[in-house]
Amino acid sequence: MNKQDVTQSLANVRIVLSHTSHPGNIGAAARAMKTMGLEHLYLINPERFPDKQADIMAVSAVDVVQNAVVCKSLDEALQGAVLVVGVSARVRDISQEILTPRVAMPQIVQQAMQQPVVLLFGTEMCGLSNDELARCQFMVTIPANPEYSSLNLASAVQLLCYELRLAAGLDTIPAPELVPAPAEQLERYFVHLEQTLDQIGFFRTQHSTKLMYKLRRLYMRARLEQEEVNILRGILTTTTDFRIRQNNKTNQ
Amino acid sequence: MNKQDVTQSLANVRIVLSHTSHPGNIGAAARAMKTMGLEHLYLINPERFPDKQADIMAVSAVDVVQNAVVCKSLDEALQGAVLVVGVSARVRDISQEILTPRVAMPQIVQQAMQQPVVLLFGTEMCGLSNDELARCQFMVTIPANPEYSSLNLASAVQLLCYELRLAAGLDTIPAPELVPAPAEQLERYFVHLEQTLDQIGFFRTQHSTKLMYKLRRLYMRARLEQEEVNILRGILTTTTDFRIRQNNKTNQ
Repeated sequence: MNKQDVTQSLANVRIVLSHTSHPGNIGAAARAMKTMGLEHLYLINPERFPDKQADIMAVSAVDVVQNAVVCKSLDEALQGAVLVVGVSARVRDISQEILTPRVAMPQIVQQAMQQPVVLLFGTEMCGLSNDELARCQFMVTIPANPEYSSLNLASAVQLLCYELRLAAGLDTIPAPELVPAPAEQLERYFVHLEQTLDQIGFFRTQHSTKLMYKLRRLYMRARLEQEEVNILRGILTTTTDFRIRQNNKTNQ
Repeated sequence: MNKQDVTQSLANVRIVLSHTSHPGNIGAAARAMKTMGLEHLYLINPERFPDKQADIMAVSAVDVVQNAVVCKSLDEALQGAVLVVGVSARVRDISQEILTPRVAMPQIVQQAMQQPVVLLFGTEMCGLSNDELARCQFMVTIPANPEYSSLNLASAVQLLCYELRLAAGLDTIPAPELVPAPAEQLERYFVHLEQTLDQIGFFRTQHSTKLMYKLRRLYMRARLEQEEVNILRGILTTTTDFRIRQNNKTNQ
């Protein structure tokens, strides 16, 4: 599987919202899509659209809302799609293959590498109609609390687009550059620490070997950075310098 | 790791929202939490709360909103928590360990099996303050579109609670009971199909072996259920019966 094909597969995924009641949900869904790198939004007979509330909820995804394709029929919205996947919370009366997002998304991404696929969402109140279900190759359901499994429409869009993004291999985050200290720098720190604790007389009441193991455990677990080692050694140096300064003062 | 301890770990997870501006987001966050089986919501100095808009957006999670603990300080909200994890979209200026939800959540669940842990969310506009960041053991960031990575607050809550739920092993969905046909039933169907196609003269123009392999491929891929095999065989029987009835009519 070509890495580039996989990441570009998101461009072949169409989010279709059927008969959405609240325009705010359309805007929120557009925002959810854009944060995950999806852009093709289709709306089947939305109750109110275009609408100011959709733009407000979209925040910086107003472009997705403005480029949304408004369709008069299911046929129009599914035109050209080689795979239609329905999203539903109510699965009791569905006798269709139902997968979790984590199992389904890699399959969807694989198909979307070459041809358009559709994720079909029903209305806020009733989900997908029987006619809509009949157009789906399979269903996706989000694992949820059995006592209250009704996610907000835009939240469901967010979750599925997130799983799509991860399945497309776009799972990295812009982490800050940490500069961990190498082993030898850590060892010099521990030698410095032990010397200092000895100088200030801490080992008169504590067993040095045992205590050094405990302090090692703490600092190893923290995975010290180079800058942090410098700060800690600076504190050690100042501690002994302070004693020297104090002694000088006393001796004057 | 005891299975029951893991699933009960969600009860030890506290969602803390700091200085939330819009009460609708508090309600939507409560709904997101409840759908994933979480219930402990803490609010640090919310701008407007309680508020009708919070109840509206909570839908059937009004209980989570009503039981929310309103705190005057960060100290109050973190009281008793042995692990505080910050959630942030803006990571450039953070020099802290940052993990993706999928990597972080198993660690959080493991800790939550025994003691309270906190997921700390900042304001809608500015995220976490420096003082809040300084209280976190590590950070979680959701992989997102680098050109627009700002998720709605409740969507971020939804996503992290979903990952928590999966990490706690609650990843099943109430799938309908399918009754797949066993191998021998499928073979009887294919024999019946071949006989029927032969009787109606379809193999006069088609190579039977090659064609039967193609039809097998289709029906095997569909993973037929028992009821479906019965329907398909019923169609085959009706097809040959129809020919017999027609022949009888012609011969009369």
